[in-house]
Amino acid sequence: MERTLTDTIHVINPNSSAHVTQAIALAAAPFQAAGRDVICVSMSDGPKGIETETDLQDSVPPMLRYALEKETEAAAFVVACFSDPGLFLLRERLRRPVFGIAECGALAAMLLGRRLGVISILQAAVPRHLRYFAAMGIGERLAGDRAIGLGVAELKDREAMFARMVETGQILKRQDGADVILMGGAAMSGIRASLEHELGIPVVDPTQAAIAMADGFTKLNRPGNIK
Amino acid sequence: MERTLTDTIHVINPNSSAHVTQAIALAAAPFQAAGRDVICVSMSDGPKGIETETDLQDSVPPMLRYALEKETEAAAFVVACFSDPGLFLLRERLRRPVFGIAECGALAAMLLGRRLGVISILQAAVPRHLRYFAAMGIGERLAGDRAIGLGVAELKDREAMFARMVETGQILKRQDGADVILMGGAAMSGIRASLEHELGIPVVDPTQAAIAMADGFTKLNRPGNIK
Amino acid sequence: MERTLTDTIHVINPNSSAHVTQAIALAAAPFQAAGRDVICVSMSDGPKGIETETDLQDSVPPMLRYALEKETEAAAFVVACFSDPGLFLLRERLRRPVFGIAECGALAAMLLGRRLGVISILQAAVPRHLRYFAAMGIGERLAGDRAIGLGVAELKDREAMFARMVETGQILKRQDGADVILMGGAAMSGIRASLEHELGIPVVDPTQAAIAMADGFTKLNRPGNIK
Amino acid sequence: MERTLTDTIHVINPNSSAHVTQAIALAAAPFQAAGRDVICVSMSDGPKGIETETDLQDSVPPMLRYALEKETEAAAFVVACFSDPGLFLLRERLRRPVFGIAECGALAAMLLGRRLGVISILQAAVPRHLRYFAAMGIGERLAGDRAIGLGVAELKDREAMFARMVETGQILKRQDGADVILMGGAAMSGIRASLEHELGIPVVDPTQAAIAMADGFTKLNRPGNIK
Amino acid sequence: MERTLTDTIHVINPNSSAHVTQAIALAAAPFQAAGRDVICVSMSDGPKGIETETDLQDSVPPMLRYALEKETEAAAFVVACFSDPGLFLLRERLRRPVFGIAECGALAAMLLGRRLGVISILQAAVPRHLRYFAAMGIGERLAGDRAIGLGVAELKDREAMFARMVETGQILKRQDGADVILMGGAAMSGIRASLEHELGIPVVDPTQAAIAMADGFTKLNRPGNIK
Amino acid sequence: MERTLTDTIHVINPNSSAHVTQAIALAAAPFQAAGRDVICVSMSDGPKGIETETDLQDSVPPMLRYALEKETEAAAFVVACFSDPGLFLLRERLRRPVFGIAECGALAAMLLGRRLGVISILQAAVPRHLRYFAAMGIGERLAGDRAIGLGVAELKDREAMFARMVETGQILKRQDGADVILMGGAAMSGIRASLEHELGIPVVDPTQAAIAMADGFTKLNRPGNIK
Repeated sequence: MERTLTDTIHVINPNSSAHVTQAIALAAAPFQAAGRDVICVSMSDGPKGIETETDLQDSVPPMLRYALEKETEAAAFVVACFSDPGLFLLRERLRRPVFGIAECGALAAMLLGRRLGVISILQAAVPRHLRYFAAMGIGERLAGDRAIGLGVAELKDREAMFARMVETGQILKRQDGADVILMGGAAMSGIRASLEHELGIPVVDPTQAAIAMADGFTKLNRPGNIK
Repeated sequence: MERTLTDTIHVINPNSSAHVTQAIALAAAPFQAAGRDVICVSMSDGPKGIETETDLQDSVPPMLRYALEKETEAAAFVVACFSDPGLFLLRERLRRPVFGIAECGALAAMLLGRRLGVISILQAAVPRHLRYFAAMGIGERLAGDRAIGLGVAELKDREAMFARMVETGQILKRQDGADVILMGGAAMSGIRASLEHELGIPVVDPTQAAIAMADGFTKLNRPGNIK
Repeated sequence: MERTLTDTIHVINPNSSAHVTQAIALAAAPFQAAGRDVICVSMSDGPKGIETETDLQDSVPPMLRYALEKETEAAAFVVACFSDPGLFLLRERLRRPVFGIAECGALAAMLLGRRLGVISILQAAVPRHLRYFAAMGIGERLAGDRAIGLGVAELKDREAMFARMVETGQILKRQDGADVILMGGAAMSGIRASLEHELGIPVVDPTQAAIAMADGFTKLNRPGNIK
Repeated sequence: MERTLTDTIHVINPNSSAHVTQAIALAAAPFQAAGRDVICVSMSDGPKGIETETDLQDSVPPMLRYALEKETEAAAFVVACFSDPGLFLLRERLRRPVFGIAECGALAAMLLGRRLGVISILQAAVPRHLRYFAAMGIGERLAGDRAIGLGVAELKDREAMFARMVETGQILKRQDGADVILMGGAAMSGIRASLEHELGIPVVDPTQAAIAMADGFTKLNRPGNIK
Repeated sequence: MERTLTDTIHVINPNSSAHVTQAIALAAAPFQAAGRDVICVSMSDGPKGIETETDLQDSVPPMLRYALEKETEAAAFVVACFSDPGLFLLRERLRRPVFGIAECGALAAMLLGRRLGVISILQAAVPRHLRYFAAMGIGERLAGDRAIGLGVAELKDREAMFARMVETGQILKRQDGADVILMGGAAMSGIRASLEHELGIPVVDPTQAAIAMADGFTKLNRPGNIK
Repeated sequence: MERTLTDTIHVINPNSSAHVTQAIALAAAPFQAAGRDVICVSMSDGPKGIETETDLQDSVPPMLRYALEKETEAAAFVVACFSDPGLFLLRERLRRPVFGIAECGALAAMLLGRRLGVISILQAAVPRHLRYFAAMGIGERLAGDRAIGLGVAELKDREAMFARMVETGQILKRQDGADVILMGGAAMSGIRASLEHELGIPVVDPTQAAIAMADGFTKLNRPGNIK
């Protein structure tokens, strides 16, 4: 297969945390191993993290600047934040397809189970997710969306965080009837397999889902983008 | 009734067109006549008009600046654009309640009919509206959302525009089964009554719906805002 | 603002219990304080309380007689019973708009949260509520509707009742995922603020929601009523 | 099979029109031919016809009086009006099961097609039907509900009425995608077969559907009723 | 009533277990007592039991052979397996109406309660049921579908199985809000009444529901079948 | 990238028509061009074409035999028939992931538009599609599913067929509000681009969608399959 400049998928971490981008890069690794060019990039002028509506608003201009600059050399863009900030704006502005990890993650989870349980980090994000899944018209597939309910300090304790994710996943599975788990964040690729092992039902990494869809879509030689 | 500084409802036209703000002011007039202080204001540093996702994104910072500046002296804010840009961000940032005309207009229309027909200006806005009404969980109440399909030049011909609105409303009523019409724009107060007369079913002005809800809510002495 | 005879909102308690009407009057107080004429009235020939389908049926003729008698001097009517008895009949018969507290309460709650938790008094009313919210097309917004499950004797113990409401609200919040509570009864205005304080999420008084919507609607100089 | 006094199904025409009851009797004939005792009865003190919300309200007390009087000797009751007036009240008050023709007709139509087209007599009944089917949670199965739009005078012209029903059925089939038709009235048994022949898709007589369900249910020796 | 050869309803147990067919026969007994000819038959060349997708696939050819052979002498067929295997195929191939116990059971349960709780035997069947109820467009009526979670050995202990069904029914009632229970299997007629007694809400035997609908439908002298 | 024996995606045409398989192969070409091994294969012992429920039932055993035989050397299987016959059975039996073109096509279309218009070949397939999309929980996203309504003879006239597809697509777009078209068949890859050009909205080839998802999924090194 001949490579061209526009073979590369750009996975944009809308925030400026390099360690988040490193975690995102784990999601890209299998595609890179299979020969696909994937670049994972932080927005140095983006918010430090994306927790609030304000962060979401502020994350868009840096992503747009980046994407416009890379447009001619990119095959596709992935917005690697579970609230899919700027997704429709980027689709409007770019001649390349743009994929959001929440949208793609939910669609991929629909292939693996009947009722989706979403593990979110922050409780404040839950109503936003519910609106988004409802806007996608897939609310009926949602078993529940539950936040792990940890403070920022506790999030740094990876073991405590993983324990809470297992606990939350069990509630989604047993009480809410989820038979597939969608991880509600961009930087969780590292624990997908362990979580799946603990819960005994499939666990979807939304960033991988989005890269996979970008990978497939860009092979179709479609001239256009996603409007 | 004693007035206080915080009795005023600020209706924000997110764009910079003074003539749009003048049209919006027609919606406020009955409330002012009933003794309520209502200020309708253009964002001079906002987009000229709001048609695209980019316009929506760009309209938020000016509104936020304005609202933060007026926060202590305002009773409530109304975002007078049918895509409710920045609604959840403003609610997050302000200690005053914030109302969006699309959300309030749809809720008000639900009181007046079983199946809502939305008359939109631009075809490109329709999928965004559909996502929004679905996010509100009221998609079942929607008979249809149809754009009048006029170019910018034609929009200036008020008679042609009104004729197209009547025609679109008739399709929504007869073909799609709408029994109430929601006007999908902020600056249409001037034609609500005429349109209702022509169509023979209730027509809702979303800006009036939002001002009415702001008016009512702010009388309840609730300390908080809408989160 | 000039007052006319038809400025008055009539809030109809369909039952004959004066103490319920007194409780309802608490909901009207903020609107009266803001200068609106609101009359809260019991139906002396209505049922003693409204618990059964029979009570609902029997509550309509007295309300209709009252409303027809007051029609020329009323701005609007509010039916202050959470099953909205006779709502569509009154709209059919009267030239004034009529508002039901269940319908308006649910619409108002949709402004304050994504998932509504309804606290009902009687278990027997729950399926009726579910049918009603489904008829409104908003079932997707409902996190749950749970009855406090107290006998009549226990209802007189206000402290026990409040404790059960807090307990039920906590289940709706924690187990069912409600982020806004709708009180499923007409005479609960007195405890709204306390309940909100205990639960930590907004609590909506449906009677206030209906008066607010009546207040706003009647300022619009619309000739018609709600059909 | 031994007969007992309580073998009889009472089909109640809530209005006082004997000719409507005669038409309803056609629906019962096949069950009588199969050996079931079915009585079709007019309510002489009911409304002349049931068109409005007021008619619906007024139709309940006569039905309740009749049913209470016949309770010990009836196997079941059928309310033969397409708005199912008093259905839940009668269920609450009687120790016998009660069936409504709208509810049973819709459930039966769900066996015969994927998308239901309802032919209604009056346009004013359509929103009420939509609320009812939504309350039943089956709105997704509804292709459309269209009224034949004839005045009272024209309804007496049976040929004109049949022609309009065929025309309305064709719109439901071709434009709205209905693959089964539910006749939205109690007294249409006489034309079911002809209509089905003209339209080429199954046509359901709701009165027959309700009698069939009453017939089946009452064979199960269940002690209780439908609550 | 004159009997004809085609008065008989054939209830097909798609598997080869005679004891399951005996249990199914209990469902038919009340209809036989009322004078209806009902034959309950095992498929000797069908799977031993129906648990997997493979069993479902394999169960269809024997049923089709049987039904084609009996077509001229049958009034209707009932597929007595809660996954309704081959339902649409049999409808396509036969000139007699065919009823599935899952479809009919769910429709019957909709008459007896607002929110259906399904007690399933195997956890693996739950997603299939959820897809089926969603395909029927009645997902909104489902409170929950929970498996009793017993191994094959434990299922033979009828007391342990009944205890688990009561326990599962209580969770569906109390936690999920079910007000009617649908037994998710064909051979449970023997315990319907006991389970209803224990749970205090109606319990539906789907096989009886299907026989009742077959019984009623075949009295209507409709020439055709269900397509 | 190192190739292994299990790199190959097997696209199964469940029928025995070689020319259909040739058409399917067009969908695979871009993936093969990008380096992926894709085999498109007819089932010589399958039905000649798949039109009926019987064809669907009969198509499963040959696919299962084929897939079991190829299991160790296949990366994934695609069922290339728009009714996804045997999808859940194959998932149950195989240790490799299995993708259906209807499921994947619909999910892919959800990325490209808000309201899906499905162009089906046969009218008889429409209710089956509607049940399937409802089972997927995405009925809300469906603008319509319309058959081109051509007889078998006319289908051979490719120009007439294309003209009817354009015509049907226009109805879906203009009357039903579709903004993305999903081709409801396996062998249409050849006309996707032309149809998209004519209609002016994206057109999805479901076979390509399924191959793309299989391609992406199999790069993730997940041990399991889709259950």
